[in-house]
Amino acid sequence: MNGAESLINALAEQGIEACFANPGTSEMQLVAALDKQPGIRAVLCLFEGVVTGAADGYGRMADKPALTLLHLGPGFANGIANLHNAQRARSPILNMIGDHATDHLEHDAPLTSDIRGLATPVSQTFTVSESADSLAQTGLDALAASLHYPGSISTFVVPADHAWSAVSDPAHRPSAIPAPSQVSDECIAEIGEQLKSHRPSCLFLGGRALRSDALHHAGRIAAATGCRLITETFFARQARGAGRVPTERLAYFGEAATEQLAGLELVVLAGAKAPVSFFAYPGKPSLLVPENAAQHTLAGEGVDALDALSRLADYLGAPDAPEVTASAPPYPLGEGPVDANELGKVIANRLPHNAIICDEGATNGLGAFLLTGNAAPHDWLTLTGGAIGQGLPLAIGAAIACPAQKVIALEADGSGMYTVQALWTMVREKLDITVLILNNRSYAILNIELHRVGVETPGPTALSLLDLSNPDLHWTDIAHGMGMHAVKVETVAALDQAFEAAMVKKGPSLIEVML
Amino acid sequence: MNGAESLINALAEQGIEACFANPGTSEMQLVAALDKQPGIRAVLCLFEGVVTGAADGYGRMADKPALTLLHLGPGFANGIANLHNAQRARSPILNMIGDHATDHLEHDAPLTSDIRGLATPVSQTFTVSESADSLAQTGLDALAASLHYPGSISTFVVPADHAWSAVSDPAHRPSAIPAPSQVSDECIAEIGEQLKSHRPSCLFLGGRALRSDALHHAGRIAAATGCRLITETFFARQARGAGRVPTERLAYFGEAATEQLAGLELVVLAGAKAPVSFFAYPGKPSLLVPENAAQHTLAGEGVDALDALSRLADYLGAPDAPEVTASAPPYPLGEGPVDANELGKVIANRLPHNAIICDEGATNGLGAFLLTGNAAPHDWLTLTGGAIGQGLPLAIGAAIACPAQKVIALEADGSGMYTVQALWTMVREKLDITVLILNNRSYAILNIELHRVGVETPGPTALSLLDLSNPDLHWTDIAHGMGMHAVKVETVAALDQAFEAAMVKKGPSLIEVML
Repeated sequence: MNGAESLINALAEQGIEACFANPGTSEMQLVAALDKQPGIRAVLCLFEGVVTGAADGYGRMADKPALTLLHLGPGFANGIANLHNAQRARSPILNMIGDHATDHLEHDAPLTSDIRGLATPVSQTFTVSESADSLAQTGLDALAASLHYPGSISTFVVPADHAWSAVSDPAHRPSAIPAPSQVSDECIAEIGEQLKSHRPSCLFLGGRALRSDALHHAGRIAAATGCRLITETFFARQARGAGRVPTERLAYFGEAATEQLAGLELVVLAGAKAPVSFFAYPGKPSLLVPENAAQHTLAGEGVDALDALSRLADYLGAPDAPEVTASAPPYPLGEGPVDANELGKVIANRLPHNAIICDEGATNGLGAFLLTGNAAPHDWLTLTGGAIGQGLPLAIGAAIACPAQKVIALEADGSGMYTVQALWTMVREKLDITVLILNNRSYAILNIELHRVGVETPGPTALSLLDLSNPDLHWTDIAHGMGMHAVKVETVAALDQAFEAAMVKKGPSLIEVML
Repeated sequence: MNGAESLINALAEQGIEACFANPGTSEMQLVAALDKQPGIRAVLCLFEGVVTGAADGYGRMADKPALTLLHLGPGFANGIANLHNAQRARSPILNMIGDHATDHLEHDAPLTSDIRGLATPVSQTFTVSESADSLAQTGLDALAASLHYPGSISTFVVPADHAWSAVSDPAHRPSAIPAPSQVSDECIAEIGEQLKSHRPSCLFLGGRALRSDALHHAGRIAAATGCRLITETFFARQARGAGRVPTERLAYFGEAATEQLAGLELVVLAGAKAPVSFFAYPGKPSLLVPENAAQHTLAGEGVDALDALSRLADYLGAPDAPEVTASAPPYPLGEGPVDANELGKVIANRLPHNAIICDEGATNGLGAFLLTGNAAPHDWLTLTGGAIGQGLPLAIGAAIACPAQKVIALEADGSGMYTVQALWTMVREKLDITVLILNNRSYAILNIELHRVGVETPGPTALSLLDLSNPDLHWTDIAHGMGMHAVKVETVAALDQAFEAAMVKKGPSLIEVML
């Protein structure tokens, strides 16, 4: 047995079931080891941003890490942006980076780079294997680190010689997974009393507090105290739809968010940090909570949000059953061209039970979010870190974690181009994903932002840098080029028909929605 | 005048003419400043790997930097892999990264990241603007640093508030550009005597030693001493073809390279480090120069290679005119399907004068290299750092630096998918680029490497991780999706016809070559 086999087998025994991969020469022994290990599904991606984005989607839905397989520093570097997003989502991810053999490093061959330097900004833990014998233990320790509640990015490096060398002592043991912290009884009591005495108030929810079980208790607290339930603008995963506890989502633009939070006397944080403006603007504040509101943290970094909410609800003697969202009759559809609102209606009307929506729809995704509050119960996943190019890969990971659930990728055209290679993996792996490309031929958000940052009269060069026409992108052609079924729709009726067809059959397809 | 305008105008005055850009909200003032500055051509790329790869191609051909415009840490991170390649090519590049306003950073908004940590591994210099007033000077200092011979990656950060704030004191001055070092007369004399007394010997050439003027003197040295002229395997830019001094290229695989260098008594390095194996393999050496060969450095890091070679040739009393390559009659073409050899013949026969070939052709690019030695004079650019996804962006940069020269991108299918978004920019900017996609539906090099690292009997999972069929990539569809003229060819005759058509007209087109 060589080091690679020892490692891969140990990870499979400890529950690793998926590996998103783009290997090269230095990882061939790891590829051979994966080949012999039927417990791990190896998924080839044509770019590392797809690898890490898929691992993020998998981690959010499975609550355990997928393995990534990356080719030295530059291969890892291609995955950094989506690791940035994953880090903001607190997703568990286990990155395995191949490197040159240890005695080859000093010669500074072309692919040699500072892997530690590149990895540290997006890894909570980073280790380098020390020998073939200890490689499996290095992997198991990294796996345990990735499960640090609610999830952590754990990266380890496999020098090629540790992978190819024979293992003389295969001893290794699973590492202990640290339990999440729990909030103290005193804190529960203090926040409980604050909620009783301050109105208006809100629970500001994010992270694991947005799962259905945690939201159930948040709803009980709202029933007991009248507090509002407000979510982060960009959350990792929220349980929504009929039968779930309704929430408000914090607005994206700082002015709107400030207005939304105006008048609150108390903000209680659970699974979320205090909200701040996404960007700064001349003369506008960064912090969004009203200055004179009291602010308390119920469940901060590493604290079990479900436990905290349930104990707070019990402390308050809250009713067992919170108010939940009713399902609504289908929306009547408009006629003619599609807009964000009509798109939202079509999705809401036809959303399958337990669908997963990966939302990188940018300016045109908001209608779908707003209109699906009463739709069939589903999970909504967002772009947590602002680094675009996450939506299509995220859908891959979600589909592999949850093969029985329909995945819908709401994808803005500009963002989609970043990791367009994801379509190929969807086809290869026959994933049950419907991609909705929202084609408005523009980085539309930037046209808004240009004015918001004080640029009053943009000229042609400025406008051209925000424009995706000239040439137009034809997403159906791009999809066909990667073997994907694709149709283009320009009217609400055509969208409705295409979306219905995509919902009733399994497998990957793309609908290019002209907006 | 705000900080952004002050900066952009100062850079334009000091000769910056191109900016490859993918901006976001935090860079809107820089976009507005570019808009007002007609001296800089702003080129939108749909992914940052295209931005930095294009800056590499520009730097190699213009010998001065292009500016990049990147969106915070994650946007920069998407460009790291091609900066790694550019660093290996010693290309001058000036990276301008937008960041949050300074007083917004502490709030850890979603896009906040450790930009310094991410940038340092691929930047020789890294600075952060300290004020709106000093922003232009920060940019000018960074520009000078990028010109550190032969070229350097210089990165600076522009906080949004420094861009948008009014400049009260616009004073700034161009920074001194450090001159390259020169080799000492003693070193010239010593190496001269060594070359006279040791046979067989070689000049091992890379970097600026592969420009036509430097090669002229290398050829004179060869004429005087009988030394061989051997180049790096992966060089930034080599002048080749009829009328140029012929060289041998070091083989990629270590065994072949060792054999090629066997028996040498003396190796003189000029513009290149001593060659090492690209990867390590079990039981094989990393160093390729014979153990008992003497090794001397004529022109090392930062030393003017042209000056060193010309002075050495003069020291040796070398003839004024070296032997140069003759042009050759057209190759007779074969019939039937295309292979690497026939592809090479077609290119050699029809290569326009002064073409620029960007070679990321991997296993199928070698035939074209070998067969174009006697073709019309041209420049050949290679993948210097091994991080695939460089070829298409490189072609963009070369075409913008040299609008009068035809650019040919030899692109392997697997590598091309990494930065496929480059096709869109080629169309938008109407660049005179012919893309030859070498479609063999495989990471073919890895099938070879799998055996070379000792994996004897790969199973289906291993093979599938190296395979690009299932689904097949249809590059003509992908190109059409980005508005690019594209044809697919399966025979030598069809390739010859399509390539001829592409050579006689200006503008972007793609030929998908089925191999």
